[in-house]
Amino acid sequence: MTALPPAGPGMKLDQVDTPALIVDLDAFERNLKRMADFAAAAGIRLRPHAKTHKSGIIAQKQIALGAVGVCCQKVSEAEILVAEGVGDVLVSNEIAGARKIERLVALAKKARIGVCVDSIDNARELAQAAERQDVTLSVLLEIDVGGNRCGVAPGKPALALASEIARSNSLHFAGLQAYHGSAQHFRTYEERRNAVEKASALANQTVALLSDAGIDCGIVGGGGTGTFDIEANLGTVNELQAGSYIFMDGDYARNKNADGAAFDRFENALFVLSTVMSRPNDERAVLDAGHKALAVDSGMPEPFRRPGIVYRRPSDEHGVLQSEGGTLPMRGNRLLMVPSHCDPTVNLHDWYVCIRDLHGAAPVVEALWPVSARGCYF
Amino acid sequence: MTALPPAGPGMKLDQVDTPALIVDLDAFERNLKRMADFAAAAGIRLRPHAKTHKSGIIAQKQIALGAVGVCCQKVSEAEILVAEGVGDVLVSNEIAGARKIERLVALAKKARIGVCVDSIDNARELAQAAERQDVTLSVLLEIDVGGNRCGVAPGKPALALASEIARSNSLHFAGLQAYHGSAQHFRTYEERRNAVEKASALANQTVALLSDAGIDCGIVGGGGTGTFDIEANLGTVNELQAGSYIFMDGDYARNKNADGAAFDRFENALFVLSTVMSRPNDERAVLDAGHKALAVDSGMPEPFRRPGIVYRRPSDEHGVLQSEGGTLPMRGNRLLMVPSHCDPTVNLHDWYVCIRDLHGAAPVVEALWPVSARGCYF
Repeated sequence: MTALPPAGPGMKLDQVDTPALIVDLDAFERNLKRMADFAAAAGIRLRPHAKTHKSGIIAQKQIALGAVGVCCQKVSEAEILVAEGVGDVLVSNEIAGARKIERLVALAKKARIGVCVDSIDNARELAQAAERQDVTLSVLLEIDVGGNRCGVAPGKPALALASEIARSNSLHFAGLQAYHGSAQHFRTYEERRNAVEKASALANQTVALLSDAGIDCGIVGGGGTGTFDIEANLGTVNELQAGSYIFMDGDYARNKNADGAAFDRFENALFVLSTVMSRPNDERAVLDAGHKALAVDSGMPEPFRRPGIVYRRPSDEHGVLQSEGGTLPMRGNRLLMVPSHCDPTVNLHDWYVCIRDLHGAAPVVEALWPVSARGCYF
Repeated sequence: MTALPPAGPGMKLDQVDTPALIVDLDAFERNLKRMADFAAAAGIRLRPHAKTHKSGIIAQKQIALGAVGVCCQKVSEAEILVAEGVGDVLVSNEIAGARKIERLVALAKKARIGVCVDSIDNARELAQAAERQDVTLSVLLEIDVGGNRCGVAPGKPALALASEIARSNSLHFAGLQAYHGSAQHFRTYEERRNAVEKASALANQTVALLSDAGIDCGIVGGGGTGTFDIEANLGTVNELQAGSYIFMDGDYARNKNADGAAFDRFENALFVLSTVMSRPNDERAVLDAGHKALAVDSGMPEPFRRPGIVYRRPSDEHGVLQSEGGTLPMRGNRLLMVPSHCDPTVNLHDWYVCIRDLHGAAPVVEALWPVSARGCYF
């Protein structure tokens, strides 16, 4: 049993039920093209991260503009993407558990599938499962380049693991995963550049060590929306894994460009449309979107183009708008909220309501796209 | 397209894929009975909040133990609950938007439906829609008893609105909604009691004012898992709307009983089973459950019965376990995590994996229940 979608194609924006996850198609298409053009000009392969959108439709649009495939984080996400026709998926993450490894390997019969590894035991589990199912699995060795999450230490520990992978008949050693997650949200350009330079040095050193041992790193994957240009300049990462650029998290606007201005390389293309459901007094307006429609792990969402109005005190199904100089909206008024973090916000919704001419005179629902891999967290 | 469920009935616990939303059936059933027995002994009607569980199966179990019906927060939730056979649903919230109001009113042809109102305009919209569809809608007037969210001010403003509702032919004035949300999580018993006493005085004063005007408040709804016993002692609220008691949020354990001990009236019955997917060094173990499997709006989830181990730095698909004196688990080890906030955590999952004898010698999957109203945020 599934709830009805909040809109249908052809509806006007003001007929869309709320809360609804809104895609500004014009801005979204410009963002897609901007990153594709950047990668082409920089001569770097683009493998966008589908964890952001969880949609085969969007993955196909990225591939049509030149992406070599997509990344995702979970086997269940990869299953949905392959079922929706995506032919090349890197699970840019470690996969633990016998049942899940069997599923991952089975998927390699239907599409080009890669996975990350950071332990010898895991490499052996994958090799055995691939051998049993008679497939070859492409493996990126994940090194910890400063994110302090997953990944083997660069240098000798990486060499030991790479040698194990390279010896396997059922695993193809494809290169390194050298993603620095936390660097994406360092606020100044200098902080991001410093972090990426250090990451790059560690990756280069590991590539050289492996090369001396006769192991070739064809791919060095990494980079995100916060560091894509720095990565491209340095040239170590040759497969860019940015995801958020298609929608632009509110939080990324808190990053600064090299010139000190707010990061503005991409446009806000994702919103949660919300209605003021209660306006008890002049102190507050209560919105119909709370934790179940808007993720707050990276801070509060912000009303779009409503200076002087802030969103505070979210609860499960409510958020409170307060004035900081602006005029509070009235009961029944509708606002576009900019999610501070798009990925977990998208994961709360079943449908993208795709609007043409969102900020124009006659915004209309052009399409409904399912968030097909929503809930695929395993 | 939906991902496969993480388990099937009859499986052993160690065969369940992770992350998975786990119900400890034994503890859950004790929690259900404990609150039902409490309400029966206190002579207070129980209308548990289904926003916690979003499941017709669980709602039916609550009703079978004596609940008069359930609450929910959204029309789409009510639609799913009614479709699953629940005959009496209060939408304990204001409903804005013409399309949603029509859906709410249509539902009143299939079940006893109530709704909250805090503005005259909204009362008129509801009355007109009910009249058009030729149904009578039961209405609770929501007053703000200190939560500072929705609700008209107690006293005269409430009387004006009550009079408007009472005049309508298509609305049935059923009483007051007097829920104090923030009081649920005040840490000491005294803070909670003081807040509820103030709320109770405001509600009593409003009931008397309405009574003098010939308007009877049959129902005074309110109370939650943090204040249920205080509400029952005071006797103002006569329909208790507690929801979390069935599962027990980790955050409620930070509340104190009257004797200063940690709040322990109900047991942890909800967990997210998670696997260590990476163990790069002795500093950390990386779990496969992050923001997309565990809500963190009320603080970090906690490893169950693993003192000295803390969960930190969650990202979308990862969480990092660190030692504060305890021994970190190894790669492949599985842990039960206690969600700090059950409601938004449940809303991330499609299935309850219901385990009998969870902490015993032979834990087994007894049932899979769908989180039927997951994603019903509108």
